[in-house]
Amino acid sequence: MKCRRCRQPAVIEVRRHNAGFCADCFVRHCREQVRRTLDDYEMIGPGDRVLVAVSGGKDSLALWDILLDLDVRADGLYLGLGIEGYSDSSATCARAFATGRSARLVEVDLPRDFGYDIPTGARTARRAPCSACGLSKRHLFNRAAVDGGYDVVATGHNLDDEAAVLFGNVLRWASDYLGRQLPVLPASDGFVRKVKPLVRLGERETAAYCVLRGIDYIVEECPMAAGNKHLGYKEALNAIEDQSPGTKSAFYFGFLDRVSAMFTPAARAEREGLRACAHCGAPTTGEVCAFCKLVDRAARTGD
Amino acid sequence: MKCRRCRQPAVIEVRRHNAGFCADCFVRHCREQVRRTLDDYEMIGPGDRVLVAVSGGKDSLALWDILLDLDVRADGLYLGLGIEGYSDSSATCARAFATGRSARLVEVDLPRDFGYDIPTGARTARRAPCSACGLSKRHLFNRAAVDGGYDVVATGHNLDDEAAVLFGNVLRWASDYLGRQLPVLPASDGFVRKVKPLVRLGERETAAYCVLRGIDYIVEECPMAAGNKHLGYKEALNAIEDQSPGTKSAFYFGFLDRVSAMFTPAARAEREGLRACAHCGAPTTGEVCAFCKLVDRAARTGD
Repeated sequence: MKCRRCRQPAVIEVRRHNAGFCADCFVRHCREQVRRTLDDYEMIGPGDRVLVAVSGGKDSLALWDILLDLDVRADGLYLGLGIEGYSDSSATCARAFATGRSARLVEVDLPRDFGYDIPTGARTARRAPCSACGLSKRHLFNRAAVDGGYDVVATGHNLDDEAAVLFGNVLRWASDYLGRQLPVLPASDGFVRKVKPLVRLGERETAAYCVLRGIDYIVEECPMAAGNKHLGYKEALNAIEDQSPGTKSAFYFGFLDRVSAMFTPAARAEREGLRACAHCGAPTTGEVCAFCKLVDRAARTGD
Repeated sequence: MKCRRCRQPAVIEVRRHNAGFCADCFVRHCREQVRRTLDDYEMIGPGDRVLVAVSGGKDSLALWDILLDLDVRADGLYLGLGIEGYSDSSATCARAFATGRSARLVEVDLPRDFGYDIPTGARTARRAPCSACGLSKRHLFNRAAVDGGYDVVATGHNLDDEAAVLFGNVLRWASDYLGRQLPVLPASDGFVRKVKPLVRLGERETAAYCVLRGIDYIVEECPMAAGNKHLGYKEALNAIEDQSPGTKSAFYFGFLDRVSAMFTPAARAEREGLRACAHCGAPTTGEVCAFCKLVDRAARTGD
């Protein structure tokens, strides 16, 4: 197979595009896919300061790398989750990348700054680890962005992630989630804008991008995620994608183009009921936000 | 595990209901699920004459059996598809059941009555076999019902079938199909009412029902279906259902209860564009219906 662009021998095949790329053209292809996504969804305005949620994995490091190459003012935020045998290695990758690119990495550490780690927090709050982790991330990325004067939080969700999340939401027909599963969520009271610039790239592609760019990333999945539903949804979609390349992309972008607006009212209704958390001021549907409850429970159990 | 109803030892477990049943109670359970479906969706009115689409497989024979037990006036229609090593055995099962229950079985034979079989028809019309077969069945079941003065065509689509079809339609966001993926389609010009009374039963359950009732059905899948997309969707959903029993049911009934109406306008718009086929008078979007085109092509190639 030859490179779609320069006709040199291809080193990467992207089956859903029915195309191969040489190393240089593939890197350019990834960059252009992100550029196109930023433009199509008006993700980042001129002069916007962007905080990239950096896990140390292939997606977030590829995202940060591409944004920097596109001259976006992008700092990174690394959140230490206190997961043994995982958090140390992922922090090392995040720091090495930041140093290599002379980029600014902000660090927040759950055990040091909030007195709990994900395994303990999940147990005491009686949540699944991935639920406690997602809650902590959403809250703290937004808080760090507000506190640091950033306009945008950018996350490394790729096409496979978004298709799997969409699949999970569709299986339950979770109208409120479906109404806000968009690649850009506008800023609103207490929330900065959130964007997902990698939705046109699959996870094989972000991995290949990092390898070709010499970016050292943590290859292991988080050990707490093993057996979660999200991975089951990914596997199910992968089996179908194998048989019919392009299915995931048609599923996700078909939803964005033709269906998501049908669910907007449900999502808007939920957001209109938000008020400030009595502890931290973050937007919440209750008296105290779920994050403050988690921190509180973890602290009381630690006593 | 004990029977949910009578506390005798259970012989069948239905995981999504988290329940076991003894043989007698399971048969009653299946009958009640169908009764409830008929009632909830007002599928069959008093005195309605019903034509059951009988393939000789577990679903259609279980359906016919249950409808007869519920005192519905139900005849069967068997359509000979001319598929070697499959059609003969399935016809034998259909005829044996009809004889055993003293029920009336109408037979239509594609090769004898229309001059083509599914393998040839699909090849000459350049359609996938399952597409040519579905098209032929939809057309001929409706025509036989209209000609025979039946009010309703009943098909044996079960929960697994409907969830897999829904999944396929959702992956493509096929609005027109989503708008009419209902367990009952009302009669309209040229179409009799169509109902799917088995949507509350999974395929393991219809198989167990037939075994417990001593109904001899063709166990083999149709050989032409091997590797089709529908089976891929079923496998993907089965993997998820294994991990989270009840997912399929929540997916399908959640769609019916909360989502399908959103897609009704798209389906209605398509149906409003229908007119009579110039050859056979059946409703169609074009000048000549897809079935007449298929028959015509098959005949010309046969010359």
